[in-house]
Amino acid sequence: MFQFGETPVAPGQVVRTSFPLLTSPDGATVQAPVVIMNGIRPGPVLWVQACIHGNEVGGTLALHRLLATLDPARLSGTLVAVPVLNVPAFRVRSRESPIDHVNLNRVFPGNSAGRFSDQMASRIWQTVRETATAALDLHSAGDLGRVPFYAIYHADDSPASRTARRMVEAVGTPHLWASEADWLAGAMFTRLTQEGIPAVIVEVGGGDVTDEDLRHFDQALHGVLAALDMVEEPVARQERYTILGASQMMQVRRGGILIPRVSPGDLLEGEAVLAELADAYGELVETIRCPFRLGFVASMRRRGLAVHPGERVSIMLEVVREEGSRAS
Amino acid sequence: MFQFGETPVAPGQVVRTSFPLLTSPDGATVQAPVVIMNGIRPGPVLWVQACIHGNEVGGTLALHRLLATLDPARLSGTLVAVPVLNVPAFRVRSRESPIDHVNLNRVFPGNSAGRFSDQMASRIWQTVRETATAALDLHSAGDLGRVPFYAIYHADDSPASRTARRMVEAVGTPHLWASEADWLAGAMFTRLTQEGIPAVIVEVGGGDVTDEDLRHFDQALHGVLAALDMVEEPVARQERYTILGASQMMQVRRGGILIPRVSPGDLLEGEAVLAELADAYGELVETIRCPFRLGFVASMRRRGLAVHPGERVSIMLEVVREEGSRAS
Repeated sequence: MFQFGETPVAPGQVVRTSFPLLTSPDGATVQAPVVIMNGIRPGPVLWVQACIHGNEVGGTLALHRLLATLDPARLSGTLVAVPVLNVPAFRVRSRESPIDHVNLNRVFPGNSAGRFSDQMASRIWQTVRETATAALDLHSAGDLGRVPFYAIYHADDSPASRTARRMVEAVGTPHLWASEADWLAGAMFTRLTQEGIPAVIVEVGGGDVTDEDLRHFDQALHGVLAALDMVEEPVARQERYTILGASQMMQVRRGGILIPRVSPGDLLEGEAVLAELADAYGELVETIRCPFRLGFVASMRRRGLAVHPGERVSIMLEVVREEGSRAS
Repeated sequence: MFQFGETPVAPGQVVRTSFPLLTSPDGATVQAPVVIMNGIRPGPVLWVQACIHGNEVGGTLALHRLLATLDPARLSGTLVAVPVLNVPAFRVRSRESPIDHVNLNRVFPGNSAGRFSDQMASRIWQTVRETATAALDLHSAGDLGRVPFYAIYHADDSPASRTARRMVEAVGTPHLWASEADWLAGAMFTRLTQEGIPAVIVEVGGGDVTDEDLRHFDQALHGVLAALDMVEEPVARQERYTILGASQMMQVRRGGILIPRVSPGDLLEGEAVLAELADAYGELVETIRCPFRLGFVASMRRRGLAVHPGERVSIMLEVVREEGSRAS
């Protein structure tokens, strides 16, 4: 019998429940929806979440589709699906918290006596740690841009990190970010991996959720389930992986109108033009260039976006090497 | 010699200038950018604007492209291009005003002693009326949805309305909304037409501005210039037009996650399913249906959008008849 808080879930059963995130000023409890699918055979407990950033709804739709098609009679272990994690931000279609303007995925493990987002992170952290043996966090670029289909794991060579590497290799993309980024020290996947719970991020698309985006999420979900031996499906590993390392936020110096010159997922050589800024008359006033010898366009905000000085228009990742699978 | 406020523009000349919208609390004047291209031959004065809603930037990009390619030596009359009209809303990437939350395109002719947006509308109204003999207003669905390529004119059978009809027939789309909508009584194109200045709206796309969107805007710009005999280009009228009449805002009854079942521009029969709402678990909880015997999907908000009760997820227009050109 699987137990989620007070809720028992028998083998072969699917239960819809929720867990409390925090209380509202009016006293109502804000709950995160959870669907627990307990397989008929024992196995890992995979926590899959979407909308840790409130406007990254592609993963929510993908989880709904997975839950509609996955059969607990064919599942080993337990799927704990959280289609909308950051409910306060989701309600207002915002990446960050509408209350304290904090990015929830930067403040783990949280603090039960901290700010709104710290307290929410603390509650989530406690729930995940009591529940999961592995975790998958579904992301996108949110409303105002797009990311390519790629996966992220925390690369610290621990046993959990090595399992995370096996998970990302099965996602369906050759582009793997082996992250050691300081700015992701408080990300949920980083902290969980450091605590011995392998956890990875899958990035797909952005504001307009396309059919291809949903196929990518679906590949990723089935790939990770297969990599953890939770479903009897072939693991579709790639021949070669492009390993991504250092990251660079591409921030503009001027206000203007964004004119992207490349697409998410493009590989660029050093000094290649990534984007330009036009002024209100259409004159080009700033050029943004690839900061690496070889760089991967890990996000691009949309054509025509009004941007202010210091705003990020793209994230670039350095291509560090090509390599084969480490799973064998 | 063409005169824009204090600024003279000689035949064959292109001048970049601006006009004041209002003052900021710090005393700075908020200016709207204007490019004036004065043709070498006399003719109409066409005012073309984008971003009357601050996040509808497709028209801004299209105007920049037009200005980069149009030659005043081949132009009869004067093009007055305002690539960003609603500067305060554009700065914060918002449809409505960030100050009074008013939709600028509902409050014309404005009021110089009214709210922020009323005062801005009044200033714009005065400038357009002093300047233009015809107007073209470029729109999109903004950030969170898409519109099909269609055109709108105010249908009151006045001489200005008849000229507006000639203009929309040249836009490049067969879908023409002959609007008599009460809720557009304060729209700039409605008021201008009623004042004897033919004015039309062109609608294209939404958040992700595609190459096809820019081609549609370009067709529309060249088509209207040709219809007004400002450029010597053939007017590409359609064989038949689909005339759209009554409008219906499709507002949801529940909160949920939007699942569109049709695309912008689709023609639907009565009771056809337009969209559904899913709850956070993925269960379908509300169905939105076509309210007309034959309806045109004039906008659709995006897949996966979190929506609250009463929010508009689509605008439907009734197909009233097919007809040929009225221009001949």
